[in-house]
Amino acid sequence: MRDSKTANDLRGLEPAAIALKLAAMRAPDAVDALDTLDHPTAVAVLEAMPFEFAVHMFDEAGLDHPHEIIALLPEGLAEAILGDISADRRVDIFRKLSEGDRQRLAKGLTEDVEKSLAQLLTYPRSTAGGMMTTEFLTLPPDMRVEDALRHIKEVAREKETIYSIYIVDPATQRLIQPISLRDLIMAEPQAPVGSIVPRREPLTVSPLADRIEVSALISKYDLLALPVIESSGRLIGIVTVDDVIDAMVDETTEDVQRFGGMESLDAPYMEISFPKMMKKRAGWLAVLFLGEMLTASAMQHYEGELEKAVVLTLFIPLIMSSGGNSGSQATSLIIRALALGEIKLRDWWRIALRELPSGLVLGSMLGSIGFVRITIWQQLGLHDYGEHWILVALTVACSLIGIVTFGSLSGSMLPFVLKRLGFDPATASAPFVATLVDVTGLIIYFSIAYAILQGTLL
Amino acid sequence: MRDSKTANDLRGLEPAAIALKLAAMRAPDAVDALDTLDHPTAVAVLEAMPFEFAVHMFDEAGLDHPHEIIALLPEGLAEAILGDISADRRVDIFRKLSEGDRQRLAKGLTEDVEKSLAQLLTYPRSTAGGMMTTEFLTLPPDMRVEDALRHIKEVAREKETIYSIYIVDPATQRLIQPISLRDLIMAEPQAPVGSIVPRREPLTVSPLADRIEVSALISKYDLLALPVIESSGRLIGIVTVDDVIDAMVDETTEDVQRFGGMESLDAPYMEISFPKMMKKRAGWLAVLFLGEMLTASAMQHYEGELEKAVVLTLFIPLIMSSGGNSGSQATSLIIRALALGEIKLRDWWRIALRELPSGLVLGSMLGSIGFVRITIWQQLGLHDYGEHWILVALTVACSLIGIVTFGSLSGSMLPFVLKRLGFDPATASAPFVATLVDVTGLIIYFSIAYAILQGTLL
Repeated sequence: MRDSKTANDLRGLEPAAIALKLAAMRAPDAVDALDTLDHPTAVAVLEAMPFEFAVHMFDEAGLDHPHEIIALLPEGLAEAILGDISADRRVDIFRKLSEGDRQRLAKGLTEDVEKSLAQLLTYPRSTAGGMMTTEFLTLPPDMRVEDALRHIKEVAREKETIYSIYIVDPATQRLIQPISLRDLIMAEPQAPVGSIVPRREPLTVSPLADRIEVSALISKYDLLALPVIESSGRLIGIVTVDDVIDAMVDETTEDVQRFGGMESLDAPYMEISFPKMMKKRAGWLAVLFLGEMLTASAMQHYEGELEKAVVLTLFIPLIMSSGGNSGSQATSLIIRALALGEIKLRDWWRIALRELPSGLVLGSMLGSIGFVRITIWQQLGLHDYGEHWILVALTVACSLIGIVTFGSLSGSMLPFVLKRLGFDPATASAPFVATLVDVTGLIIYFSIAYAILQGTLL
Repeated sequence: MRDSKTANDLRGLEPAAIALKLAAMRAPDAVDALDTLDHPTAVAVLEAMPFEFAVHMFDEAGLDHPHEIIALLPEGLAEAILGDISADRRVDIFRKLSEGDRQRLAKGLTEDVEKSLAQLLTYPRSTAGGMMTTEFLTLPPDMRVEDALRHIKEVAREKETIYSIYIVDPATQRLIQPISLRDLIMAEPQAPVGSIVPRREPLTVSPLADRIEVSALISKYDLLALPVIESSGRLIGIVTVDDVIDAMVDETTEDVQRFGGMESLDAPYMEISFPKMMKKRAGWLAVLFLGEMLTASAMQHYEGELEKAVVLTLFIPLIMSSGGNSGSQATSLIIRALALGEIKLRDWWRIALRELPSGLVLGSMLGSIGFVRITIWQQLGLHDYGEHWILVALTVACSLIGIVTFGSLSGSMLPFVLKRLGFDPATASAPFVATLVDVTGLIIYFSIAYAILQGTLL
């Protein structure tokens, strides 16, 4: 949360004075304050603060434009910071750097760091490999507990976490067993670390596993970190719970925005540029508009009927929106149940068997309300729906049953279809479902009208 | 994720044999397997397994109906389990117990446990107090590091976490400073624990803080646990990161379901009973239907115009849905930005100033597409929109600009209005926005039609 008060406090101060204020804050708050400054000032402040603290700034995921700021820093300082920050953060920054800056700044890294960076860069950002850090704590199985504790004390500073400890084969780096610092502390000082917890197949992921899979495992097994292993069994990194939380927040934002019928912004609302936001919104809006044009075509097809019975047009918005609403309910239910793993792709027919009666019940409810509404208006003289008003009311009621049932069914099946085709089911946005149901809804309405009103109005 | 394979494996086995299989699994997997059994079998299995492991089963948040199963267990076993599980889990189970079972089972608890339970039960489930556990690790500030480590080794088993350690005033239980086990391990053995980390105001929440606030703090500061303190400063509990992850998953599910236009289910899709699901869906669907009835009233109002110019009806679905889609985009953007704290209530006018040009740009885009579509159809002879077709196309284009602008503006302002009124902005579901925009959209359309077509078609 940006605090405009902090921004005001810093305004007009010298970089050195700002650096002093920032160094007294918690790193995430200092980063928020740094983000309120323009880039040249931010650079001057970073140069003025103790090196250790500048490293902390770049270690925070909350820093808004780390790649732009690091590129403006004096080369020596930039390289020193990039050498010192955590491996997963370094990769995030390098991913965003321009090709030129990337080559320029990579030159200053040690060979080890460069190798780890090159390896991490091969994995897409939303995979376990793209989220993991290579700074984890390993122990050989025959080390004694008291020696292990002494070793941990020495290396603690360089590791992302010391609470998850990995016992690996020293020759092959294959993961034998993860243990926790808690296990270690509670164990006999003389015992070899490989013997203090009963062995079982460790929970691991491959580097190409999606971040959703990583979150699901961390969440189900209450882990603080999850080891990432190659197919050979070699331990190459760990994903820690704080990165998983950040990924979950990102994922939710993407889902909400996509469900709202747009591309995900990938940036805070107030920060994204106007043209960029237009691009993210215009695409889907135009696609949905082209889809909805089919409603105009459908209406044209029934223009003759419409001229004979203008009364039918009165209920078109009501009927269409009911189909869209029931579809949107069903879709949101199924998207979420699929995301949580409550249902699987092969369960589609069980869902269909649930949504069919759901649609019939909900449609009958709305149909009854609609029928009563027309009857009351007619009887009280609020509006005259013509001599065949009962048939009109019946048409509306039957159409509502048909359309709500169709909406519930197609809304619930769409996420399955998308998943089967390899898309994220969350792409089944509410507007998408509504568009699908609108066109079919018109056809259902006019077909039922034709059946009921033939010989009278039509 | 339920595995039907596991269920098949267990079918037909004796409870003792099932207990043996379960005890070899990880607790979360064993709980999934237990959930596939009927209650009487589950009870027999729990009785047959080692007591320690039965406690683990009830410690898992994944167990589906812990309150029903515990009520069926022999009283002695039930009381022993309830006495041994973690405090936050115990409270979850007691919350769901019937009044009779609650009184019956509370009798078997020790006085301490009963007191902690009674205290935790006073906080609503979605607050820090409702999520916290009372089993945290405290140290007096003058204890030396080596003594602290020895103490931790002894009490580790009873604590929810030993990685977050709380230095409290022994007389008042006021929180002085949270430190981490990592700090402790890296410190000089002879130093007093209160001196190893520089002091600053600790990050804390009050017991009535919403779980969203708790998640935001844990996520921003990468915490493993957050202390909960009374207004006096007394430490009364901690919320751990695993509970926050569970809360985040719940919160996302609720948001998605509400955004889909229904009450949140509070239960997995395949498990909730049919009548219960109907209740959750029918309410909002009926409310939205009653709202959409205003469209019928609006249409009735313009019936004279409709009879004169049936051609206008052809574009009603297209125009209405465009308003709904643009509103849904804007709402989803703002709901999420508010949830992430990227924007505040007082920023509403800055959003309005952004959504107004957004709506105009997007509306002009759709308006142009619409105009071109009508022109092409007319020129190619695909449909005859009458002699005044250019005026009709102009009406459609202008209406789209007006409606998309109105949709973007009202869709973005609605979450602010809801938040200001004390509701969760996430209640601004896509169907709700669409309904709001539909009625206004018709009025905009007919007003523009009247202005442009007066004297020709109307």
